[in-house]
Amino acid sequence: MNKIITISREFGSGGRELGKRLSELLGYAYYDKEIIEQISQRTQLAESYVQQIVDRKPNTFFPITTSHSMHGDGSDYLMKQHASVYAEQTNVLFEMAEKSDCIIVGRCADYILKDFNPLRIYVYANMEAKLKRCYNKANPEEELTRKQMLRIINRIDKDRAKYYHYYTGRKWGDHVNYDLCVNSSVISVKELAESLAHILKKD
Amino acid sequence: MNKIITISREFGSGGRELGKRLSELLGYAYYDKEIIEQISQRTQLAESYVQQIVDRKPNTFFPITTSHSMHGDGSDYLMKQHASVYAEQTNVLFEMAEKSDCIIVGRCADYILKDFNPLRIYVYANMEAKLKRCYNKANPEEELTRKQMLRIINRIDKDRAKYYHYYTGRKWGDHVNYDLCVNSSVISVKELAESLAHILKKD
Repeated sequence: MNKIITISREFGSGGRELGKRLSELLGYAYYDKEIIEQISQRTQLAESYVQQIVDRKPNTFFPITTSHSMHGDGSDYLMKQHASVYAEQTNVLFEMAEKSDCIIVGRCADYILKDFNPLRIYVYANMEAKLKRCYNKANPEEELTRKQMLRIINRIDKDRAKYYHYYTGRKWGDHVNYDLCVNSSVISVKELAESLAHILKKD
Repeated sequence: MNKIITISREFGSGGRELGKRLSELLGYAYYDKEIIEQISQRTQLAESYVQQIVDRKPNTFFPITTSHSMHGDGSDYLMKQHASVYAEQTNVLFEMAEKSDCIIVGRCADYILKDFNPLRIYVYANMEAKLKRCYNKANPEEELTRKQMLRIINRIDKDRAKYYHYYTGRKWGDHVNYDLCVNSSVISVKELAESLAHILKKD
């Protein structure tokens, strides 16, 4: 069976950087945006639209009035689209896991690929460190205030937690769902990647 | 400021082994049972009694009838004893942290010593691994059944969670209270200790 590493991460914690570093050090395939591209190709939905769907759980609180005026079709259609995107996501992840050793960022991969016995990592960070990382990556022309950036970070993480819980029934960030949870403000992503690669190469 | 590592651990997860290994690799002092000894000396209470007190949160649900018959003295006395043991525990931990670099296992040290900015580790493990470790350490003459051992593990961890929550207001095992949470059934204590020592020596 191939070796799989799944990385769940708070926004701005450096989870993607960890994935990329591990991929370079171990020679495993690295999948992140590629998953969205694959789902988009298979469902014939635009990548930007798929990205929106996979970033949030389906809105189960469709307004009754709207639902009535659409004879229930609007919410049904949306729910079906979410379900088909999730189903395709599952297919894509299975294919990736069966193809070669790989690292997968996000997408409930720790849950979907549980039978592959992945090494499940959760990366988090102190808010100040997350703000700093987000500012470094942000488009300087946007000129987001600290308050605005805080709101973005909190909203994205809240959406990720809801999405994860919706599809897995589990609590996002609860250590029981991971093998390693690490605060990247204290143990740097670079050091963590090197240590993990060292351990995994011996296995 | 001295370097402090605190280790919280599920029963049978190998947290003490991690502490001892780190102590050997880093040359930091290691404190575990020594804390109880110190509290016992200072409070003039027997070590076995102190051990009982520091293993459980005070019983705040003293029956009203009993309380009445004792004019409230029984529960008051017990509560005061718990409080004085916790206060002494705090003093002992501060003295240890001020003395030299050290590793402290349990005792809410991550919370009590927060101003020392400790590296806070939480060690957990799959139940099968915990059972195995506990059987290896148990007195073979006791001949505990699997069911009995499971009950012991679950009860001790439940008590630890309650104790931690009572004195800190925090949830035991919640990643936000630690810098590193690790499943020792997946990443061995030996490998973890070596990796951490490598990282910490560079700091």
